[in-house]
Amino acid sequence: MNAELIAVGTELLLGGTVNLDAQIISEKLSELGINVYYHTVVGDNDARVRAAVEIAKSRADIIVTTGGLGPTYDDMTKQTVAAAFGKKLVRFPEEEARVRSWFSGSGFKFTENNLSQADFPEGCTILANPIGTAPGCAFESGGKHVVMLPGPPRECSRMLYNEAVPYLKQVCGFSEIVSHNIHIYGMGESAVEAQLRDYMLKLTNPTLAPYAKLGEVQLRVTAKAATKPEAEAMMTPVIERVKSTLGSVIYGVDVGSLENAALIRLKERNLTFAAAESVTGGLIAKRFTDLPGSSAVFRGGVVAYTDDVKRSLLGVSPSTLETYGAVSEQTAREMAQGARARLNADFAVASTGNAGPDGDPVGLVFVALAAPDGEVTVRELKMGWDRERIREATAHVLFHMLLQAVK
Amino acid sequence: MNAELIAVGTELLLGGTVNLDAQIISEKLSELGINVYYHTVVGDNDARVRAAVEIAKSRADIIVTTGGLGPTYDDMTKQTVAAAFGKKLVRFPEEEARVRSWFSGSGFKFTENNLSQADFPEGCTILANPIGTAPGCAFESGGKHVVMLPGPPRECSRMLYNEAVPYLKQVCGFSEIVSHNIHIYGMGESAVEAQLRDYMLKLTNPTLAPYAKLGEVQLRVTAKAATKPEAEAMMTPVIERVKSTLGSVIYGVDVGSLENAALIRLKERNLTFAAAESVTGGLIAKRFTDLPGSSAVFRGGVVAYTDDVKRSLLGVSPSTLETYGAVSEQTAREMAQGARARLNADFAVASTGNAGPDGDPVGLVFVALAAPDGEVTVRELKMGWDRERIREATAHVLFHMLLQAVK
Repeated sequence: MNAELIAVGTELLLGGTVNLDAQIISEKLSELGINVYYHTVVGDNDARVRAAVEIAKSRADIIVTTGGLGPTYDDMTKQTVAAAFGKKLVRFPEEEARVRSWFSGSGFKFTENNLSQADFPEGCTILANPIGTAPGCAFESGGKHVVMLPGPPRECSRMLYNEAVPYLKQVCGFSEIVSHNIHIYGMGESAVEAQLRDYMLKLTNPTLAPYAKLGEVQLRVTAKAATKPEAEAMMTPVIERVKSTLGSVIYGVDVGSLENAALIRLKERNLTFAAAESVTGGLIAKRFTDLPGSSAVFRGGVVAYTDDVKRSLLGVSPSTLETYGAVSEQTAREMAQGARARLNADFAVASTGNAGPDGDPVGLVFVALAAPDGEVTVRELKMGWDRERIREATAHVLFHMLLQAVK
Repeated sequence: MNAELIAVGTELLLGGTVNLDAQIISEKLSELGINVYYHTVVGDNDARVRAAVEIAKSRADIIVTTGGLGPTYDDMTKQTVAAAFGKKLVRFPEEEARVRSWFSGSGFKFTENNLSQADFPEGCTILANPIGTAPGCAFESGGKHVVMLPGPPRECSRMLYNEAVPYLKQVCGFSEIVSHNIHIYGMGESAVEAQLRDYMLKLTNPTLAPYAKLGEVQLRVTAKAATKPEAEAMMTPVIERVKSTLGSVIYGVDVGSLENAALIRLKERNLTFAAAESVTGGLIAKRFTDLPGSSAVFRGGVVAYTDDVKRSLLGVSPSTLETYGAVSEQTAREMAQGARARLNADFAVASTGNAGPDGDPVGLVFVALAAPDGEVTVRELKMGWDRERIREATAHVLFHMLLQAVK
């Protein structure tokens, strides 16, 4: 089964809103094993909505529309979609009663145009909308299925989960879909692909697909089967194959991110962590404390943006700063040592460098990790990127060093 | 002129990401007076991308694609779009040199497939991508214009503003388009609209449109005219009208953000700032040091995630912590005072609270600001949101307090 989503709403074409409904529905349909091949967004214009529906009808088994179900003149979805399938809109008495009762209870003035919210394609299933005024509907015609949902994301997602999903499960004769994410650091997307391309192309169920995020790559394995254990069993050899091909660049499966992997490992071993940040300016602390539960292992950090804060709060020696400068291996080392001692942590990381745009050389960064045995590892990085990416990449390197050290 | 956006990327159809590019581009094209009639999203599948391009070609004057410009086998946008217009991909020597030089500097292993990033439709204009590896391109064929932009929103928006907009202005024979952003904090979008709705609807050139961001609202004034001074003159009375209607909730025009407005003001007055963070966990330091030039006024910060770090690095008294607890007005006050003294700054801000998901009560936060005269202002916040929003909103409040204090 394949599906197409059609969002009806001029506001989306003007850039005032992002098409959140499409994301919510796509995620859910993927879980159901329904392949979404296209999203279309079209304005509140009868001819263009009709054209979009005709195209979708020619290429999709399931059409899901969002928006345009209200009572005003620019709400035309039901009318136009029904026409495309040769169906009439008819008044549903129980829906008319609902609309009239809503108005009598609301104190709003009833106007006749509101009764359009009781009109639906003949023979359809009504999808209730307990948190809004416009219900949705679903029908089958000539082997094609149509589901119409409201535009506001709260109403759309609720109707999707409670009303449309049960309808679609029946349509599809549903099975289980399970995914795992393999996390890779230290190898680019193209190099990962160069090693796995032939294997990936050969796979159909499970599937294996790469996703690049800033500084890291994820491979997602997805299997469809009658039961979850069956799906899991199908994925095991794929994950093993990926592991044996890529080796140590894999830092975990379903671990979320480098910092989350580090958090999990520190927690398991009952160890703590602190950060001394110059060039990353709080980013390491921010990313780590974004994680719920980080307070169990994170002691805190010092953002030392000036030499005298490096001296006073981290104990970097004045002679180090004078001899080698703030952006140096020696300063990074003493920052990590200082943070570990003064914040009383098992591990401490430190960053110092220049992320630009001014100063010279931009992109030169020193990072350091102080370990429980007192050993300090320092690395020099040279990055030809912009400020944001230099800072993010530096945080990545340090979380990865931490993760390796806690192993 | 009308346009269609085609986003290429299976991840969008799987619901992993929202189509943010479509929103960014639609907003900009609307400003340019280009009507966007359709958005299409299609997966990394040659036949389906081709079908989408053929449909767009039949109904749009301008096709803007996003995504699929990278070096891997599922990056097929250039290839497929070029074929739809009867064009070949050819290697651009200066782009080949760029790719090779990037690899030699990066330390990443070069593989031949990366050279696909030097291949473009014959005769096209290259759109530079200084913050990513995949450039975009633009060409005209049979009266239709095609612009290809990268998928990652940072890269897409930057290339749009710096490269594609100048190209499209030429295409449309446009004169000058100038915008100003009026920044509002402390009034919701619907309240802003209630006060300005009639005025906004009356305006055609300049236009006035609201944009809600997390915790703040911006009003964008945009004028089209033959010259920039003419456009500016047209906007002056609109900006004055908005200022007189909304008054003190406006914190600046074209100031970027609360933290940037604070940075500008601190710099003008040659004053410095430090942060003591518990609940915001480095977010205030991170957001401030995201700004180029922040080192001129930011002394640094302490992320005090535990009681003993609050004591040792910020000098919060043990009896305060014992009597009132870490989440208290008194602790916030002493954190701000401690940061101001120990980091030797003119102003210091402090945050302490619980952003959840565990602990009780979630959403209770105390913020404090210590001023040059030694005065400390403390505020209590109660927020019924999730972790991320509580942290972001707390940072907003503190940057706004700082901004007001420096006035």
